[in-house]
Amino acid sequence: MQLFFTDIINDTWATFDQVESGHMIQSLRKKTGDEIDFTDGLGHHFKGIIVEADRKHVKASITSSQRHTQEQLGLSVVMAPTKQHERMEWMVEKCVEMGVLDITIVGTKRSERNKVRLDRLQKIGLSAMKQSLQFFLPTISYEPKFSKVLLKESPQKFIAVCLDQPLPYFGIDLKPSQGAIVLVGPEGDFTPDEVDSAAAAGYSKISLGQNRLRTETAAIFAAATYKTINKL
Amino acid sequence: MQLFFTDIINDTWATFDQVESGHMIQSLRKKTGDEIDFTDGLGHHFKGIIVEADRKHVKASITSSQRHTQEQLGLSVVMAPTKQHERMEWMVEKCVEMGVLDITIVGTKRSERNKVRLDRLQKIGLSAMKQSLQFFLPTISYEPKFSKVLLKESPQKFIAVCLDQPLPYFGIDLKPSQGAIVLVGPEGDFTPDEVDSAAAAGYSKISLGQNRLRTETAAIFAAATYKTINKL
Repeated sequence: MQLFFTDIINDTWATFDQVESGHMIQSLRKKTGDEIDFTDGLGHHFKGIIVEADRKHVKASITSSQRHTQEQLGLSVVMAPTKQHERMEWMVEKCVEMGVLDITIVGTKRSERNKVRLDRLQKIGLSAMKQSLQFFLPTISYEPKFSKVLLKESPQKFIAVCLDQPLPYFGIDLKPSQGAIVLVGPEGDFTPDEVDSAAAAGYSKISLGQNRLRTETAAIFAAATYKTINKL
Repeated sequence: MQLFFTDIINDTWATFDQVESGHMIQSLRKKTGDEIDFTDGLGHHFKGIIVEADRKHVKASITSSQRHTQEQLGLSVVMAPTKQHERMEWMVEKCVEMGVLDITIVGTKRSERNKVRLDRLQKIGLSAMKQSLQFFLPTISYEPKFSKVLLKESPQKFIAVCLDQPLPYFGIDLKPSQGAIVLVGPEGDFTPDEVDSAAAAGYSKISLGQNRLRTETAAIFAAATYKTINKL
């Protein structure tokens, strides 16, 4: 199955933007009368028939609509930006494929960049949602202030740290069937102040295991662990 | 800690190739008298003192050597090549960081390429081993014949398939404290013949969950699942 996206939908019709239309008509050679599957990223799986097959503007008549229940439970990934932008892009692609709820890039004391191309990350996230046949689009955002993300509520809150002292293993502490949030630090790790303020905000310090993982690998591993523990 | 690699070691001395030497001397400004940590990728963690700090040829006097026990258990990842070589490179980096035993790129009926830049993948694997502070270098190889990889022995053998019928979930079927091998197919999945021949060779069909994962994501997710289940 090929899944398309649009947010221009009413009860009977849907239209597609230039990028989706071009992909449909030019790359995939879709034409009038063809059936397509698409989503609004808000939980709907639509089927429709193409009625206007313009490479800049596709219009489809909706033939069926199925509402998926919102996965209220899910993992919120909060990660420090990486030096190379590309590493964040890979993280977004993999975390979205693995079904995370949302992703926040957060400024930290030791962050190696403060410019994030959010539009690019969101585009990759959208593409990964379609690719992996999901119907909810994870929110991808940037929060420059670390203290702000600590206000986010979640049933289970974790901060991944690389301390010398032994810490509980994420995959053991994480309870299934509950949402969770996990904070992943920059290359030089969170500062002791950041770890303390997270602890004061109810975050449990956890370890992602014996190997030193790159920032984006840590985020991907956390997403995979959530998926495994919840058998998703 | 910064971990270097060399395989030119005798009882008292180690020398480093041009790449490692350049990295040490030019990028990291190491000089004679500095202490360094290095490994042979065969389980040894050496400490040494630089005695010759040439940017093309570093020589160190070994001051201590610690032997890590071989992780006999581990995950063998066998994956079809991806169309974009870069996706395999990311898979290698992430799987090595997560501590897999070895990686085999295998030719399949629906493989989208038959050229694999093995030297490049091995270089990335070596770098990921150092980065993640591990002392065993995973073997990375290419096997053009699918039937050949089925001869590989392992206590637990799995083939990840995207069938419509419900299959056991990898993270449930996988038993801890045992080695395992997992086969991951190309974009269009394994052919029924390939699945049958794997089943005949003792492979269990498993699912990696509800989302359709890209080939390299499936391999990374399998590596993460193994790490989570084994609490590594």
